[in-house]
Amino acid sequence: MPKRLHPQAYIDGVCSGDRMVLSRAITLVESTLPSDQLLAAEVLEGCQKMLQGDPFRIGITGVPGVGKSTFIDAFGMQLVQSGHRVAVLAVDPSSGLTQGSILGDKTRMDRLSREPNAFIRPSPARGSLGGVTRATREAILLCEAAGFDRIIIETVGVGQSEVAVHSMVDFFLLLMLAGAGDELQGIKKGIMEMADAIVVNKADGDNLLPAQEARAAYESALHLFPLKPGGWSPPVMTCSAIAGAGIPAIGKMVEDYHGKALESGYHRQRRRQQSLAWMHETIHHLLLERFFADESMKIKVLEMESAVESGKIPPTVAATQLIAVYLQQTAK
Amino acid sequence: MPKRLHPQAYIDGVCSGDRMVLSRAITLVESTLPSDQLLAAEVLEGCQKMLQGDPFRIGITGVPGVGKSTFIDAFGMQLVQSGHRVAVLAVDPSSGLTQGSILGDKTRMDRLSREPNAFIRPSPARGSLGGVTRATREAILLCEAAGFDRIIIETVGVGQSEVAVHSMVDFFLLLMLAGAGDELQGIKKGIMEMADAIVVNKADGDNLLPAQEARAAYESALHLFPLKPGGWSPPVMTCSAIAGAGIPAIGKMVEDYHGKALESGYHRQRRRQQSLAWMHETIHHLLLERFFADESMKIKVLEMESAVESGKIPPTVAATQLIAVYLQQTAK
Repeated sequence: MPKRLHPQAYIDGVCSGDRMVLSRAITLVESTLPSDQLLAAEVLEGCQKMLQGDPFRIGITGVPGVGKSTFIDAFGMQLVQSGHRVAVLAVDPSSGLTQGSILGDKTRMDRLSREPNAFIRPSPARGSLGGVTRATREAILLCEAAGFDRIIIETVGVGQSEVAVHSMVDFFLLLMLAGAGDELQGIKKGIMEMADAIVVNKADGDNLLPAQEARAAYESALHLFPLKPGGWSPPVMTCSAIAGAGIPAIGKMVEDYHGKALESGYHRQRRRQQSLAWMHETIHHLLLERFFADESMKIKVLEMESAVESGKIPPTVAATQLIAVYLQQTAK
Repeated sequence: MPKRLHPQAYIDGVCSGDRMVLSRAITLVESTLPSDQLLAAEVLEGCQKMLQGDPFRIGITGVPGVGKSTFIDAFGMQLVQSGHRVAVLAVDPSSGLTQGSILGDKTRMDRLSREPNAFIRPSPARGSLGGVTRATREAILLCEAAGFDRIIIETVGVGQSEVAVHSMVDFFLLLMLAGAGDELQGIKKGIMEMADAIVVNKADGDNLLPAQEARAAYESALHLFPLKPGGWSPPVMTCSAIAGAGIPAIGKMVEDYHGKALESGYHRQRRRQQSLAWMHETIHHLLLERFFADESMKIKVLEMESAVESGKIPPTVAATQLIAVYLQQTAK
């Protein structure tokens, strides 16, 4: 059993911006121990009550090699220099295999990792996509309670995790490279469709002209998609994260979006919808988890599986009987 | 309350091949009335016990206009003439809107609808995809108990329903047309990947050459996909359903597949896997259905939704509390 603090100690520590306690609180919400989950719920509820302002969540994706860490380092510093406090989190369902492939090496965010107004948290080291995104959603909340008003969520550009990240952020930024076809970059049309902006990185040196051409090509491609809610037309921009070129303009564009979304009420409306969807998703998840974790059901499920496999009982009938036993049994 | 038979009357009628009782039993499993669902479970269990042989389920898809009904009419008659008894069912999640767009007009299967050894059932007229596919799975079982050994499941080629159908059939046949790009035909790569065979229909008259060209093109495309389990390499064939050309060869190809799958044990192995997956899917579905149908939870869910929307409580905490109340309450 890992050593834990008193719930109020987590809440006080997080809300006073204590980075050490924030780290420990994130470790707590990432835990799958039942006792930790009870404690985590109490801490989250206490932190939620202390939330202030309208923190802004920015998802950033792109295939490996596109320069995500360098971009986040430059972009995050830009936000810090504009007076914001920046937290960087990651969703990486593959990290169980690769031992934390993204953000694993904090030194790749050289300046941000030494910046007092920034907080970098590597991705949860294991678990299913569902478990990882749950922990990430809760880590966002903790960072916001700790006074970070700009939350960057990094993900690898390979599909499923983008959909999960899109459902928890306010703005979704897709990083691309020039000279690689979309297919080579492994970016699916569905991900381009989710983007609130596309940024062609590594627009420097010999790569400047190709990057500008790629920008024009993506711009044409985006015209085929419908406008975003609120009439936002996703821009396509270029930058050189390593040289810093284009980063201030991207910072301004993203903040413009946030200002408009706040003014129109879209920001809060979307946050409400996301919260409701997240609650329902968690209900689904917990109902299943509790059912399959129920010790007295395990043997019954195995028996029914064997009866279904041998064709003795139709699958729906087996399921109906199991549910009846389960709901009646919890009723005793 | 619709008039219902005694459970044994359904079982006896279905298993003796009484088409009228079979129709009424399918109506019963399509019903969403709780009392009907209990009765349906009893009927399904009784019918399951009477199943004999290894009936063969064939999914057929293609976009509207590809000639699905005409093809199924010709293909079904081919199977009947080879000594089989053929049932045709449909999965059409859109039928709630379009009033049964597929199989709605039985006369489009002119010969099959007059054939004593064939049974045609239009798609369930309403409901979510989940509900429709549940009813279809159970209708398959009833048809098999009634002695139909070749079950054809028709679906529209637009995505989600194909995945559902693929999970309940032994063989998945994709109908295509010449001269229309894949995009025009609305067929996604994922659907081509599921196909156990592609048939280019309307290979007649001026369209013969383009159909043969399309056949070659699809053949090249299929080479990019991995082999199917058991080493099956999906063939691409042409036919003219309206003239009957190519239909016997397609019938032979499909029966060859079935013979090999029976011999290798793959048929039964796949059926076991499908049954287990179906049982688990139904458990998921029922857990959610029971939770959201629980009268005493409805008001609590609304209260929590409002607390989550206003930011008073984090979504995961709200969900956790609701589940705790639910499982404790059913425990009193």
